[in-house]
Amino acid sequence: MMKISDHSDKQSTEVTRAPTGIDRLDEVLRGGIPVPSLVLLLGDVGTGKSVICQQFLYKQAQMGLYSVYLCIDHPPEEVRENMRSLGWNTEKLEEEGLLKFIDLFLGRGYDYEYICSTLEKYIKESNRFVVDSISSIAFIYGEKLAYDLIQKIQGWNREGRGVGIINAVRGMHSQSFEVALQQACSNVILLEMKENGRFLRVVKTTRTSHMTEEFGVEIDEAGIRLL
Amino acid sequence: MMKISDHSDKQSTEVTRAPTGIDRLDEVLRGGIPVPSLVLLLGDVGTGKSVICQQFLYKQAQMGLYSVYLCIDHPPEEVRENMRSLGWNTEKLEEEGLLKFIDLFLGRGYDYEYICSTLEKYIKESNRFVVDSISSIAFIYGEKLAYDLIQKIQGWNREGRGVGIINAVRGMHSQSFEVALQQACSNVILLEMKENGRFLRVVKTTRTSHMTEEFGVEIDEAGIRLL
Amino acid sequence: MMKISDHSDKQSTEVTRAPTGIDRLDEVLRGGIPVPSLVLLLGDVGTGKSVICQQFLYKQAQMGLYSVYLCIDHPPEEVRENMRSLGWNTEKLEEEGLLKFIDLFLGRGYDYEYICSTLEKYIKESNRFVVDSISSIAFIYGEKLAYDLIQKIQGWNREGRGVGIINAVRGMHSQSFEVALQQACSNVILLEMKENGRFLRVVKTTRTSHMTEEFGVEIDEAGIRLL
Amino acid sequence: MMKISDHSDKQSTEVTRAPTGIDRLDEVLRGGIPVPSLVLLLGDVGTGKSVICQQFLYKQAQMGLYSVYLCIDHPPEEVRENMRSLGWNTEKLEEEGLLKFIDLFLGRGYDYEYICSTLEKYIKESNRFVVDSISSIAFIYGEKLAYDLIQKIQGWNREGRGVGIINAVRGMHSQSFEVALQQACSNVILLEMKENGRFLRVVKTTRTSHMTEEFGVEIDEAGIRLL
Amino acid sequence: MMKISDHSDKQSTEVTRAPTGIDRLDEVLRGGIPVPSLVLLLGDVGTGKSVICQQFLYKQAQMGLYSVYLCIDHPPEEVRENMRSLGWNTEKLEEEGLLKFIDLFLGRGYDYEYICSTLEKYIKESNRFVVDSISSIAFIYGEKLAYDLIQKIQGWNREGRGVGIINAVRGMHSQSFEVALQQACSNVILLEMKENGRFLRVVKTTRTSHMTEEFGVEIDEAGIRLL
Amino acid sequence: MMKISDHSDKQSTEVTRAPTGIDRLDEVLRGGIPVPSLVLLLGDVGTGKSVICQQFLYKQAQMGLYSVYLCIDHPPEEVRENMRSLGWNTEKLEEEGLLKFIDLFLGRGYDYEYICSTLEKYIKESNRFVVDSISSIAFIYGEKLAYDLIQKIQGWNREGRGVGIINAVRGMHSQSFEVALQQACSNVILLEMKENGRFLRVVKTTRTSHMTEEFGVEIDEAGIRLL
Repeated sequence: MMKISDHSDKQSTEVTRAPTGIDRLDEVLRGGIPVPSLVLLLGDVGTGKSVICQQFLYKQAQMGLYSVYLCIDHPPEEVRENMRSLGWNTEKLEEEGLLKFIDLFLGRGYDYEYICSTLEKYIKESNRFVVDSISSIAFIYGEKLAYDLIQKIQGWNREGRGVGIINAVRGMHSQSFEVALQQACSNVILLEMKENGRFLRVVKTTRTSHMTEEFGVEIDEAGIRLL
Repeated sequence: MMKISDHSDKQSTEVTRAPTGIDRLDEVLRGGIPVPSLVLLLGDVGTGKSVICQQFLYKQAQMGLYSVYLCIDHPPEEVRENMRSLGWNTEKLEEEGLLKFIDLFLGRGYDYEYICSTLEKYIKESNRFVVDSISSIAFIYGEKLAYDLIQKIQGWNREGRGVGIINAVRGMHSQSFEVALQQACSNVILLEMKENGRFLRVVKTTRTSHMTEEFGVEIDEAGIRLL
Repeated sequence: MMKISDHSDKQSTEVTRAPTGIDRLDEVLRGGIPVPSLVLLLGDVGTGKSVICQQFLYKQAQMGLYSVYLCIDHPPEEVRENMRSLGWNTEKLEEEGLLKFIDLFLGRGYDYEYICSTLEKYIKESNRFVVDSISSIAFIYGEKLAYDLIQKIQGWNREGRGVGIINAVRGMHSQSFEVALQQACSNVILLEMKENGRFLRVVKTTRTSHMTEEFGVEIDEAGIRLL
Repeated sequence: MMKISDHSDKQSTEVTRAPTGIDRLDEVLRGGIPVPSLVLLLGDVGTGKSVICQQFLYKQAQMGLYSVYLCIDHPPEEVRENMRSLGWNTEKLEEEGLLKFIDLFLGRGYDYEYICSTLEKYIKESNRFVVDSISSIAFIYGEKLAYDLIQKIQGWNREGRGVGIINAVRGMHSQSFEVALQQACSNVILLEMKENGRFLRVVKTTRTSHMTEEFGVEIDEAGIRLL
Repeated sequence: MMKISDHSDKQSTEVTRAPTGIDRLDEVLRGGIPVPSLVLLLGDVGTGKSVICQQFLYKQAQMGLYSVYLCIDHPPEEVRENMRSLGWNTEKLEEEGLLKFIDLFLGRGYDYEYICSTLEKYIKESNRFVVDSISSIAFIYGEKLAYDLIQKIQGWNREGRGVGIINAVRGMHSQSFEVALQQACSNVILLEMKENGRFLRVVKTTRTSHMTEEFGVEIDEAGIRLL
Repeated sequence: MMKISDHSDKQSTEVTRAPTGIDRLDEVLRGGIPVPSLVLLLGDVGTGKSVICQQFLYKQAQMGLYSVYLCIDHPPEEVRENMRSLGWNTEKLEEEGLLKFIDLFLGRGYDYEYICSTLEKYIKESNRFVVDSISSIAFIYGEKLAYDLIQKIQGWNREGRGVGIINAVRGMHSQSFEVALQQACSNVILLEMKENGRFLRVVKTTRTSHMTEEFGVEIDEAGIRLL
């Protein structure tokens, strides 16, 4: 699979944008995620973080962009099954090499070096990627190492000039680390579980403005929708 | 005892489900626990976590599925006694090899390697299993090692394609670890002790929807019932 | 002193019970403490934890059961003095070998191995015992070791099939350890100091039901009474 | 100076009591501090803990009892100066050997072994003693070592059968350690600084009852008075 | 590029001031930042800290002062891109040597010694500098080392007699470290994200007075403005 | 410069007092700071702690007492500049040897032993001294070492029989350490930053009474004034 160069000339002031696969969220972001970008998706357990990642990557692969799902918390076969249960059949896209699931599932006992070099390879060569999640790495290897890794991911993505989503679980870290993640990523989307449902809010963007309101989130058989 | 293959063809979109042994809870879960699954049962002291595990395993063994109770916090003879006091005589099921109580009681001083390899063996070979509890392992061996173990259990269960319940005690860990447990398990049931009684809530499911309300819990001589 | 076998046949479903020495508390427990059992007595400073232990053991020794007070926080002579000031003369019971005070007072500088082996010996050979307290052991040797010890005590008592009370001081540990203690013991009684007096509540029992209300506690020259 | 044996026959049920030097406090304690006893004086900065200790020791020395002030936080000359400024001239009592100020001031750089052996010597040989304070020892040497020391002090005082006051600063330790101190000492007096003044409350006694109300505290040129 | 000596004679009592590039903020500071000075800019994620730094440095370089941006959290090319998107073309100023972007981006894996010596060189030789940010250094290398570095930066700037802004992320550190940063810097500006927008407040100045009110902050295509 | 013996005969009951340089504060202290004394000045960032120290030392030097400013957080030249900006020209006093600024600025990288021996020398030989601040030492070298140092300073000052002010930053330490500092110093003055301004309160004195009210604080070109 060859990488597609979807960003415009460096000197241009117009910002190229990647659609998220969720129409209303693209409006909130004034047209999608700026390219290149690192997006932090920080959310409570059960708010649909992984579904957003899957929806985004499925959409991008369908658009012909080389998309990679870096599977850390759950094995690829489980991610595939979940996507299938949402009606997103990945088989064809995988055959065409537009969508890849890379197995970095921590339950396999991979060593840290292998995880890093694999992340580096796919972040640099892909157009779009998802790291799901940075939280397990921080929990097992410590928050300092994980912050260092986020900085490296930022650098690799800078070279790759693609768009990546970093998944992080709210409440699974020190408050300091959750702020540090937000500092390192140029865009931050927050997902909260409240008494009366799930809510999404864009907290930070770079090279674009954004709506600052909170939106209800609904997950059904067709994926995520903003209310 | 031979393992029974109770899951349907991988390509099917229909999700096979295991009844919990508690009728109302099956309704809350829209028909039972999806197979395969790892369920986290996270609850306050005295809310009946172990009784739910026992009721589930007794039911599954009666249905002819090979069921294993991995006894970590209390010795097997105590679990058996408690089940008998609830009217669940395990003798016949044990003789038929449908129900096993494996002694990993920490008061024996087993080493960590033995605990891990025993868990691996029974999680892979059984149809249904209970780990009671992950909390003592986290307390003694540390939360990082316990999180690593949960990831491994996830992987072993993935191979075994069965249904397992992981018991965890709310308040016995850092907040971070309790969130981490919820991140690692595809299904999460919460049990809370409040002023006016015990309450159950399903917090997270995968490949199924669920009711999000809170239900009162009653424990009597016939086991657990939802109100 | 020979140990008396006061528990009934293993196959019987009827639960044998040990009176606590406090009539109203026996009613709260629906007839006393199930035999065998480990009871956690978790209470604030100054709520009468030690008096309950002394009253229980004095009562049991008078009933002819071999009873041992494992003195960790205060030396035996101080426990005896306190019991005498409450009108419980221990001399005769000590002479008959029905009541023993074992000196494990931490101020003596005993090493940890000696403490463990002494606990093991008396927990296994006695009918009734009191560990007063686990809190000092946790404070000096760390909460992990203390939790490991509680698991061992559980196992030793399982072999001894007697009734033991573990004294623990609320607020002297991490919240996690206080929950861990409650997880390890099959019965938990909580003693709280409030603005308007001392209060007792049974939090957890196994193989019996219990009243869940809170009761006022009064200590006078005749010991503890529930209001 | 020879130690005076001021406690009655071990078999007597009557409790001998030492006056605190503060009339109203003796009433609160139903006649003074039981002999032998360890009293924890736990109080906020600036509530007069040291003044209470000095008043108590001055009174006891005047009654002819061998009294020792173990000076840890401030050098003896400073304690003497403070007592003189309150009108308590210690010279004559010091000459008669009834009052001693022992220099264990941490600013001198004494090693821990010397501190322990000196405490042991004077606690065993004196009738009355003050340790001012345990807090600095806990801060410098750690709370575990300080708790171990408190247990040893308890044992030494048991042998000495005297009355000792341990001074501790509220808020200078972990909550756990402050509870641990209260667990180790048979009597606990709390001093609080509030918006509207200083207040004293007896929290715990052994072998005696006590008033549980809170009393205002006034310090003037004649020392401490309860309101 | 030669350093310009923009401070007046040491004996003069008149304080030279550097404009911030934000007119209203200069009024709040009674005319700008006193020269020499270290300014701490402590703010929540997404409040525009980096934009203030960029605006300040762009303004100073335009005034002909040798200005250096020390890029730690993000690579120089990203800072340049962000400035360009705000209409600040840095090319000409860079060519003239008035503006430099120094690459200390942590994602490159620079070692600590290199970071320190580079900071020293440019802080001493420049007229104006920005350290963006101290927070990542504290997170990766620890807060003690970072505090030590801040003290050294203070000393280097003292020699250089210039004006430097230190960027720090609120909530990414212990409370103690955030106070320590404020203690070390002679001027402190706080940026808060609230429900109803972003707010700026000057917390501390030295050798000048300042307005103590809170001001609304607006970021648009022309940079930061105070309301 | 020879040290002046400004304290009266040891046997006198009259307490000699040093004026603070702030008239209203001397009234609050019933005539000034008792000699000898260690005063803790604990205050929030930006409440004027250093200005109080400078005002005190300037006043004392003008009265002919040998006064030393031990500069830890900021270099001497910065302290001098700040004093000059408040109209206090230190040149003449420095020439006469009445006022010294000792460079212990942590940004220089002095080692701990040098800091200690320098503090010892000047605390013993001076009449008046300021340590500005203990907080940076605690932050870099740890709170235990800093508490040990405070105890030593207490001892050195005891020998020197002078008056010293220890500056400490509220919120820059553990709560325990802030209480420990108050325990070690015989006098404590608290400075708080509130919504509506700065406030001063005397918390603790020894060998003198004091007003307990809170006073507003104003800093202008003439230094600190109480309202």
